[in-house]
Amino acid sequence: MSDNPSILIVGAGAIGSFYGAILKQAGCSVSVVLRSDYDAVKAHGIRIKSPLGDLSFEPDRVYRDGDVPEAVPDFLILCVKVLPGVNRVAMVAPWMGEKTRLVLIENGLDIEKELADAYPHNPLISCLAFIAVSRKDSGVVEHKAYGRLVMGLYPQGIDDHCRQLARLFKNGGINIDLTEHVVGERWRKCLWNTPFNPLSVIANGADTQTILETEGGEELVRAMIREVMEVAAADGYPMDESLIDKNIEGTRRMPAYKNSMALDYLNGRPIEREAVLGNVVAIARRHGIPVPHLNTMLVTLKMRAALEGRD
Amino acid sequence: MSDNPSILIVGAGAIGSFYGAILKQAGCSVSVVLRSDYDAVKAHGIRIKSPLGDLSFEPDRVYRDGDVPEAVPDFLILCVKVLPGVNRVAMVAPWMGEKTRLVLIENGLDIEKELADAYPHNPLISCLAFIAVSRKDSGVVEHKAYGRLVMGLYPQGIDDHCRQLARLFKNGGINIDLTEHVVGERWRKCLWNTPFNPLSVIANGADTQTILETEGGEELVRAMIREVMEVAAADGYPMDESLIDKNIEGTRRMPAYKNSMALDYLNGRPIEREAVLGNVVAIARRHGIPVPHLNTMLVTLKMRAALEGRD
Repeated sequence: MSDNPSILIVGAGAIGSFYGAILKQAGCSVSVVLRSDYDAVKAHGIRIKSPLGDLSFEPDRVYRDGDVPEAVPDFLILCVKVLPGVNRVAMVAPWMGEKTRLVLIENGLDIEKELADAYPHNPLISCLAFIAVSRKDSGVVEHKAYGRLVMGLYPQGIDDHCRQLARLFKNGGINIDLTEHVVGERWRKCLWNTPFNPLSVIANGADTQTILETEGGEELVRAMIREVMEVAAADGYPMDESLIDKNIEGTRRMPAYKNSMALDYLNGRPIEREAVLGNVVAIARRHGIPVPHLNTMLVTLKMRAALEGRD
Repeated sequence: MSDNPSILIVGAGAIGSFYGAILKQAGCSVSVVLRSDYDAVKAHGIRIKSPLGDLSFEPDRVYRDGDVPEAVPDFLILCVKVLPGVNRVAMVAPWMGEKTRLVLIENGLDIEKELADAYPHNPLISCLAFIAVSRKDSGVVEHKAYGRLVMGLYPQGIDDHCRQLARLFKNGGINIDLTEHVVGERWRKCLWNTPFNPLSVIANGADTQTILETEGGEELVRAMIREVMEVAAADGYPMDESLIDKNIEGTRRMPAYKNSMALDYLNGRPIEREAVLGNVVAIARRHGIPVPHLNTMLVTLKMRAALEGRD
């Protein structure tokens, strides 16, 4: 293992640019593959304002879709939204070497399998990002707060490459929690995301406080968290009941918060409906677990998508 | 009983104007109480285009809120939307005589009780309208199709005044079905309205075909119809299972149809959420019947209303 491995970020939006900058700080070679921001990044690099300081950097190489790589990377970090129309397997194909470790920093549940199946000999590192970051303009990113990654091998375990990558991120200035059970961590995150993100979309952008303070709102969220928990347990990831209270109380302590799925929806951008909600309902069906509250949200979101021609 | 009883329509919107015109055709004295359309109707009467012919008429008297009645009517027909902010008991109070029969031509479930409680000595006739009619302009109404009324005493039975009113409507040219069990008929209508109307609102105006043809849509509607049926049964109105198939098949045979609740919502007008959905969920709770699909719709609609400051 090289001390300063080469990194390629595929999909350098807000998340990918930020974590690329962190690895650059740690001394890695960091290249990027871009679509819409190619010209801006080629000309001016990636600009990042952050409470951690100015994280702006010039990527070692700037590629766009269809380019031929000069060298395959040690770590390929994929940071695109998980959407039905986006073929992630094809997207990483040109850049994967025999020894390349594939790293996902992406949201949702059951999003690893198609990549693990397509690249069975490349160990897959799955990460959950806890971060507030957004793209302000072409090649310009604002990091507002947080940044912690939860990281582990998919479907389970931790290996030396995980540890190496974790060390590099830490050297770059962010917190990392290595986990033997990254899928269980995804379920834990879904306890919050699976109810709150789609609810906010269906309620046309309601923030967390509106959701909880509407008559019947907290009760509905609790019923949805319980459904996620039951599906997780059936899938081999039992969780403690007390997490329902903890998610509600934690949300009540936060300032009113409009989540990114709601912002995406309100701004006409595609939403990760399947990764965050549809996959949970699909797993529920496989196990015969009834999830009437989650399914009502899922199908009504599909009706909207059908009406709006978004799907 | 007078052969040509006096009628007062309170809330002469599209529905009230149409049924007032029918009773005028039948030879009754028909007066109206109006809010926004007062000036137009005072000046030009009520204009109604209909496949039945030109039903336009001059009301015998045109009142507005706060006027003092010249005489109390034999039948007071209330045709306002059933909305949380609308006090229907106070609205009819100035016009109710000792012998006045109160008639509701209104949508929804469990909408009679507050009026029956407020006027225990005035028999209450409850009607369901099956009609396509809309207000085009101040004092101008377009009747597109249908018009049948299902009519009975609340909470049950049929009396001579029901029969008299039914005869007058028939003489005016429309079909009437008298029923001993009007509450059961309301439940039957809710089998369709309670799923389809709010679904269309939540899906931002999806029509019936979009609702049924979306993946999982028909299954969701069936689950909702089943919930309504279970609540109706617990409330004393069991229905045959085959009505689920009949409602689905009937809807598939109709042209794609955007219901009035969706149109109201899209046009920024208040919706009869409680009358059509909330009251069903409330009765379910009283009987301990779980209605997770209906409740998810109800609470998400409340979240929207909270966000939009509509409630």
